[in-house]
This record gives sequence, C-alpha cells and structure tokens, in this order.
Amino acid sequence: MSHYEFKCTECSKSHIADPRTLRCESCSGTLSVTYTNWKRQVSSLVGGGTLDMPIPLGSLSEYLSLGEGNTPVVSMPKISSMFETEIYGKLEFMNPTGSFKDRGTAMMISALKSKGVSEIVEDSSGNAGASVSAYATRAGMKAHIFAPLSAPQTKLNQIKVYGSILHAVDGSRDETTEAAEKFVKHKSIVYASHNLSPFFIEGTKTFGYEIFNDFDREIPGNIVVPVGNGSLYLGIWKALEELKERRLIKTLPKLHCIQAENINPIASNNTWNKSKIKSTVAGGIAVGSPPRKSEVQSVLHQSGGTANSVTEASIVEWQIKLAKHEGLFCEPTSAAAFAGLENLINSKHINKNERVLIPITGSGLKDVFPE
Amino acid sequence: MSHYEFKCTECSKSHIADPRTLRCESCSGTLSVTYTNWKRQVSSLVGGGTLDMPIPLGSLSEYLSLGEGNTPVVSMPKISSMFETEIYGKLEFMNPTGSFKDRGTAMMISALKSKGVSEIVEDSSGNAGASVSAYATRAGMKAHIFAPLSAPQTKLNQIKVYGSILHAVDGSRDETTEAAEKFVKHKSIVYASHNLSPFFIEGTKTFGYEIFNDFDREIPGNIVVPVGNGSLYLGIWKALEELKERRLIKTLPKLHCIQAENINPIASNNTWNKSKIKSTVAGGIAVGSPPRKSEVQSVLHQSGGTANSVTEASIVEWQIKLAKHEGLFCEPTSAAAFAGLENLINSKHINKNERVLIPITGSGLKDVFPE
Repeated sequence: MSHYEFKCTECSKSHIADPRTLRCESCSGTLSVTYTNWKRQVSSLVGGGTLDMPIPLGSLSEYLSLGEGNTPVVSMPKISSMFETEIYGKLEFMNPTGSFKDRGTAMMISALKSKGVSEIVEDSSGNAGASVSAYATRAGMKAHIFAPLSAPQTKLNQIKVYGSILHAVDGSRDETTEAAEKFVKHKSIVYASHNLSPFFIEGTKTFGYEIFNDFDREIPGNIVVPVGNGSLYLGIWKALEELKERRLIKTLPKLHCIQAENINPIASNNTWNKSKIKSTVAGGIAVGSPPRKSEVQSVLHQSGGTANSVTEASIVEWQIKLAKHEGLFCEPTSAAAFAGLENLINSKHINKNERVLIPITGSGLKDVFPE
Repeated sequence: MSHYEFKCTECSKSHIADPRTLRCESCSGTLSVTYTNWKRQVSSLVGGGTLDMPIPLGSLSEYLSLGEGNTPVVSMPKISSMFETEIYGKLEFMNPTGSFKDRGTAMMISALKSKGVSEIVEDSSGNAGASVSAYATRAGMKAHIFAPLSAPQTKLNQIKVYGSILHAVDGSRDETTEAAEKFVKHKSIVYASHNLSPFFIEGTKTFGYEIFNDFDREIPGNIVVPVGNGSLYLGIWKALEELKERRLIKTLPKLHCIQAENINPIASNNTWNKSKIKSTVAGGIAVGSPPRKSEVQSVLHQSGGTANSVTEASIVEWQIKLAKHEGLFCEPTSAAAFAGLENLINSKHINKNERVLIPITGSGLKDVFPE
C-alpha cells in the first residue's frame, strides 16, 4: 500500500495517486498529495538539515536530481535601507535550468518515472518547459513541450537544447494550455502539467523547508511571491503547514501574492474576467485562468497575506533596480514581487522594520534584456 | 601586521599585499598570497563544513557575497556508462552570474573594497566581466569592463545590466587586455585583473575545499579543467595543497588541463607562438598569452596531470551531448573539458573505472546556442 494518496482540494474525495489523474473524478477539483504514513521521509533533499520532508516516492533512490534547491539567501542592503525594512532574497534563479520550477519538476518527473511513464506533454510560458525538458532528458523520457511562440527566444531555445520536442503555439498562455490538452487527448500521452500535477507542489515544498534552516527557525513574517499558477506559493505554504503540524514552528508568515495588473485573476478580487486579458512583460505569471486559484485564495485568507497588482512600468523599473543596486539580475516575473513589495509597504500592509523574504524566481538571462 | 603577504611565483620575493601590486617589483613574475598566520581562517564560506579556509581579509564581515559557491555535484550516468568511468560534474554555472568566476570575484572585490578601492578596471572574455560588474555594483564600486566586441551578445548585455561601463574592443582577447592596460595607465585606476590579482585565486580555492566535503574526503583521482588563464585550475590546486599540508588529505589528484587546439599555449608543449592564434567557440579559454602559464605548467608536472587540446567540432559535439544526454546545458568552454576527457580516456591517460570530476564552468544561456 502506498504511503500517500491524492485528495481533492474542493470536495476532499480521496484518489489513488495515479500520474494520469489530474482532477477529481467527482467534482473536477484540483488534487493534492496527502500522506497516510509519514514514516517515508527523506532528509537529504533539504541541505544543512536534520529536517525530514515527506515525499511521494518509494525511496530517495527514485529521486532524480540535477542539483536543484538549496539556493542561497542573500541580504538586500540597498533596498532594505530604502524601505527601512529587513529584506532577503532567496536566489531561485540559481537552479539548474535557471528557475524555481526545477524543484517541482525534479519531484514530478521522479514520480512519473517511478510509475513507468516514458512520454509526457507539458505546457509552459517557458521556464517550466525548459525545466521539464531537462529533467525528462535526465530520466530518459520523451517530452512534448507546448509554449507560446511569443515566449522569449532564449526560453524556446533552451526547451529545444535538451532534446525535447517544442510545440510553439501562436496564441496566449491560456491558448497554449488548450493546445496541449487537445494534443494529450488526441495522442493519449500522459499530461505532466506542472499546474495540475500534485507531485509538482511536493517538490516546491523544499523551498519552505529550506527557509526553516536558512533563518535558523526564525522565518521572516512576510513572504512576497509572484503568482501565476501559484505552484511555488502553494508549495511554500504546504511546507510551512507541515512544519507547524510537527510543532517545529509556532506561527506562520503572511504569504503575499503579487500579480501583473494586466493579468490578475487573483489580485483583482473577483472583478477579473478573461476578456480583460492584456499582455505583460512578466511572462511567468501571465496566467488568466489558474486552475488552483481557489487554493491560492484560501492560503491568502489563512495566512493573512495581501494580493496586489503591479504596473508594467514598475516591473521593469524593479528589474533594473535589482541589477544596478544589488547586483542581482532576474527576469521581469521576479521583479514584479519587488514592485508589489513597494506597494505593500506604501499601503502599510507591511510595516517598517518587519522582515521580508522574496524568492527571486527566475534568471534574467533567459528573458529579453531591459533597456 | 597583516596575516598574509604577496609572494612572487618566479623569484619568491615577498611584497606587502597592496591591491595595486599585480607583478613582482624585481622580476615581473606573477604573485600569489602567502599566509604568515593561519589563525585568520573562516569556515562559513565552505558549506556543510567543519572546514576552515584561510582568506586574505581581516574578518568574514568584509566578505561580500552574492551567494556564490557551494555548487552541487551531480553524477553523469550516461557519459559514465559510455566511458565505463565514474564521472561527476560540479555545476559551476549555478553561480550567481552563471560561472565559476563568481568565486574569485567575490574574494577579489571584497579585498579591494576592504582596502578602500572605489573604481576598478577589468578585462574579460565575458564571464569574468559580468561577474566583476555584479560584485562591483554590490560593493558600490565603479567598474570599467573591457571585453571583445566579438563576445556573445548576452555576455556583453549582462556586463551592462549591472551598471558597469562596458568598453567593447574590436580585437582579440589579448588585444582586449592590452586596451585595458593602456586605460589603467592613462587613468590611474586600479587594475582588478582577475588573471593577475592574487586575491582572485584565493576565491577559486573554495572549489577545492568544497570537493573535500562533497566527496566525504575521497576526492576523485582525476580533475579535468578547461584552462585559459588557469584561475580555477590554480585555485583548486592551492586548496588541495593546503588540505594536504594540514594532513586532511594524503594524496593529490591529477589535475588535467584542457585547451582548444586553436589556442593552446600550454597544451601545445611549447610549440605555440602567438601568430598561430585562431578563433575558437570556447571563448572562455581563448587566451594566447596566459600570464600564469608557468604556474599551470608547474602544477601539471607536480600533479601528474596531462595537458590536452581539443578540436572545435568536438567542443560543440560535447556541448550538445551534455544537454541531450544528461540534461545539463553549459557553454562551449565547459564542454571542452569533456572533449578532453574523451581524448584522455582514448589515450589511456585516464583508465576505465577511475573517478573523474569535471567543473562545468559556465552557463550555456550566456553563449550562442548550438545548432
């Protein structure tokens, strides 16, 4: 008997953890992993640690790593002093393919591989596609990656360089998902959607476990996350809840959710409708219909975090500020979190002298350079 | 009194460690740091460790970090099985600016900053320039970076994005150095040459200390390094010598040196002359006149390593193989080491079943994508 199962996030129905199952059979809700036996835990995924984390694999030997995770946390002296707030960045662009996605992908591909899957389909704005391409190659799997033709050329090239088949879609991020779903149906290939796969969030959980070590148990009170589909946002929360359940931490930080004004289905407070969609430089969060939207909203509510929308101009401005003030070059999607931080401080949702952690989610090298 | 000094690598004359001194006043030889008091050691630079490493700073608080070092080591299952040899890669492209240079730069900039330097000149094929640009920004220094106009556009853009002044030179890598030296002389600005600064190698030493931890003291018998100026090659050796002197390791591995056939002043076995220079896709090792050439030759001799030259075709072939077989996307310079490994195995300089470690020095994202 497996030590974990899938559980519907809407109706709580349990399902056998089959990699082909991405939605609840009863209500079509999204699924998450639930552990029925916590004995199957591994420590070595989380560096520097005595800390175990439950994972949906039979054993650690099934885990395929390209060296993801255990990213450094750096102080941000100039921006901290600008805001009179203690700000830290966790450098997720220092993952093997240049984004935090590698955490989720490593776990998802390992789980699929362990269940004998040899060919997969994925859709992505670019980062997840490159990540899945690399790990699928590592696992000896064939991968079809759907990405918008309008994605930065470097991301499209990166998807191809690892040997996967790129399906460039002349349409929006949401139309790319639709094209992938159609292909999956037609070809009967496993849909390894990083947005829907419950395994993916089990991988991004490592971020939450690591910060427990990074800050010597004193996790900052605010974590500001750029949110498209919310796979990092939800992974961090799941980790923190596990740590609290095990009485390793007492209080949970506020998890703030940042979106681009042009595409803000969560931050618009339910005034959003798909027809309002505009393009954004923050391609990683250009998601008009996030399938885990209600999960993100639930975490926002539980954690006391704030959802905030940022302008295109502020995103680019912060991308440049991070490079020229702190020596950190990230993609626009990551910079959006700092634009959001500025708003949250101005609106007093984050007060002076509070501690703030921001994941710097992706590398600037993969996107269009700022002018 | 300082706990370290500079020593000439040719005539052994001692010099006060002044950041403006890059060559021996007596014989123009290159300089290296010598510790007169090992008490000034720091452990926290080297992760997972009980291990101290002597550094040329007054205290660790002077060390400016962007999260460099502590890169993962991954197995290379497909290439290992191809060669029936146990091969590991240490992923240096997972440094903050995408190359191992960040190790050296962090120490060099920290040392310069601690001595009150506020403006510097550097020359580079691109990676070191981007690295110095980022760390100079972090340190609040003004930096002039000289790089060949023919360097990959992404590297040139990266140099500029952190705010440094790019001087693009319409000439070879060696002519770029000459242009920088001329500018230094004319403007009386400190020349923070990563090829000459003794501080730089004190930073790349961390690689050598880390592998002591990575392999639980059982460092592989062969380390295969792409060599241009040799700053990583020499840093690894210096670390290993320090570990041996402290009786933490007994035997030293062979340090093999890989160069491109088109520019191989070291591997050509003294038949090289500058007029033979041709271009190479491996821009990071396109150095016709490495100032530390005799130091590299001395380590080759001491360690029993072999110098080997590789063809342009084999470099590109290995760049693609690494991506499509192992899911690792590196720049051509890094792939050269694998082309060299193939030669060394074919020529029986490395035997079957031996253990080999290769630093994967720089990110493929910063260079021209392979066809």
